[in-house]
Amino acid sequence: MNRKQIFDQIIAKRSFLCVGLDSDINKIPPFLLDEQDPIFAFNKRIIDATKDYCVAYKPNIAFYEAEGSKGWDSLQKTLAYIPENIFTIADAKRGDIGNTSQLYSRAFFEKYNFNSITVAPYMGSDSVTPFLKENKTVIVLGLTSNVGSNDFQHLTLSSGKKLFEQVIETTSSWGSADQIMFVVGATQSEEFKKIRKIIPNHFLLVPGVGAQGGDLKSVAENGLNSQCGLLVNSSRGIIYADRSEKFDIVAGQKAKEIQQQMSGLLNNFGLL
Amino acid sequence: MNRKQIFDQIIAKRSFLCVGLDSDINKIPPFLLDEQDPIFAFNKRIIDATKDYCVAYKPNIAFYEAEGSKGWDSLQKTLAYIPENIFTIADAKRGDIGNTSQLYSRAFFEKYNFNSITVAPYMGSDSVTPFLKENKTVIVLGLTSNVGSNDFQHLTLSSGKKLFEQVIETTSSWGSADQIMFVVGATQSEEFKKIRKIIPNHFLLVPGVGAQGGDLKSVAENGLNSQCGLLVNSSRGIIYADRSEKFDIVAGQKAKEIQQQMSGLLNNFGLL
Repeated sequence: MNRKQIFDQIIAKRSFLCVGLDSDINKIPPFLLDEQDPIFAFNKRIIDATKDYCVAYKPNIAFYEAEGSKGWDSLQKTLAYIPENIFTIADAKRGDIGNTSQLYSRAFFEKYNFNSITVAPYMGSDSVTPFLKENKTVIVLGLTSNVGSNDFQHLTLSSGKKLFEQVIETTSSWGSADQIMFVVGATQSEEFKKIRKIIPNHFLLVPGVGAQGGDLKSVAENGLNSQCGLLVNSSRGIIYADRSEKFDIVAGQKAKEIQQQMSGLLNNFGLL
Repeated sequence: MNRKQIFDQIIAKRSFLCVGLDSDINKIPPFLLDEQDPIFAFNKRIIDATKDYCVAYKPNIAFYEAEGSKGWDSLQKTLAYIPENIFTIADAKRGDIGNTSQLYSRAFFEKYNFNSITVAPYMGSDSVTPFLKENKTVIVLGLTSNVGSNDFQHLTLSSGKKLFEQVIETTSSWGSADQIMFVVGATQSEEFKKIRKIIPNHFLLVPGVGAQGGDLKSVAENGLNSQCGLLVNSSRGIIYADRSEKFDIVAGQKAKEIQQQMSGLLNNFGLL
């Protein structure tokens, strides 16, 4: 999917919500543990309940990897179940030398058929460019929302720029705005304007709304562009809002609440 | 395994060789494709042939992940087959926020029983500290040997330090030299002295000897310390040296050649 196709979905659903499928066997409703594949059973019902309110799903790969080969089977079934018009993100944060990144690209883009993958920039160009494939998107960690982001991302370079600014500037030159997105943490919303100056047209994946404490309104004010340009993720606040047999209905309600806020914000910005 | 235990193995085997198990279904000897689990069959024979000449094995996780759930089964069998006194490294280059790193730690340290894992530093402390477990080692990317290492790792900070120096300095303060190692690329051997000033006692994992063009002698001259402090990896030069039915015998010979060079270097340095 390219930017135009994602934007079309955003307009159709009046939403730029990404639902994070951080599906943990220890946190899903206990009654699902009787299912043959509890994680897939959970994801299936979450997808059914939320698919009208979101434009992207983002499985966090660590949760599947922690279950071994079984977890990878659950992931594959989940990907096959997600409707084709919904953008899929492998939140894998991979990054390795060229021939290894090539293999990760094969795994996530071909085997699991993801539309995109998150990658870490520290190893530079040859760790990122193997993910620049037709109709696929690479999502580079720009500025993250965790405590540790202060350790290196905010370091000041001799040029006066912050490291995260240089990472975004350099990385954005390796491909088009249809091929590259950036992870930008919502808790650092004062930095959005700086980032929007460097990359006015790129989509930003914002992981911090909800458990990590971001503020949707300020993210939208600073991050929206003429093609929306934002995918805002919520994981725990939606998928773990309830642990009863009605968990999916509650998840759907939570997703709808966010979708309605987003609809208002898109409207205020003149995109609807 | 702690530094002392690794050093004991190095002395016993007169070797600081790490064999990289970058086992690719498209590169292993074709006759193995008839086996039920060709990747495990390949690894098993490589391990049998090289285990007397190396002190560590480093499966590159991308190669297993590319095969889906089958690949993870091959990895688990491989780990179970590696002799207990040989240090195991999950070359995974993971790095995520705290709760996600915790899951990666569970996957690699508990499920697969690796002794260590490689991680990327860009997301900072909470992406690294979940891997600081008793008797486990986290191996942080310091300076890599690929072309892309010039993009960010060599950037000069306002303090005058290079980014990789700051990463090594900061990260080494998060745990002891028994808990943390660093990846340092052999093609940048003139940087070894700088790094040894920052971390005289840590083990360095050097991935660049062989296909990536490092020079063992200069790595040893600049990197050895009183407990050796080096693990030097070779992957393709050993495991793909031959594709006939004797591939394992040839792999063993290649490993032995490197071990003999290493024995001489350890001797020259006064460690034997």
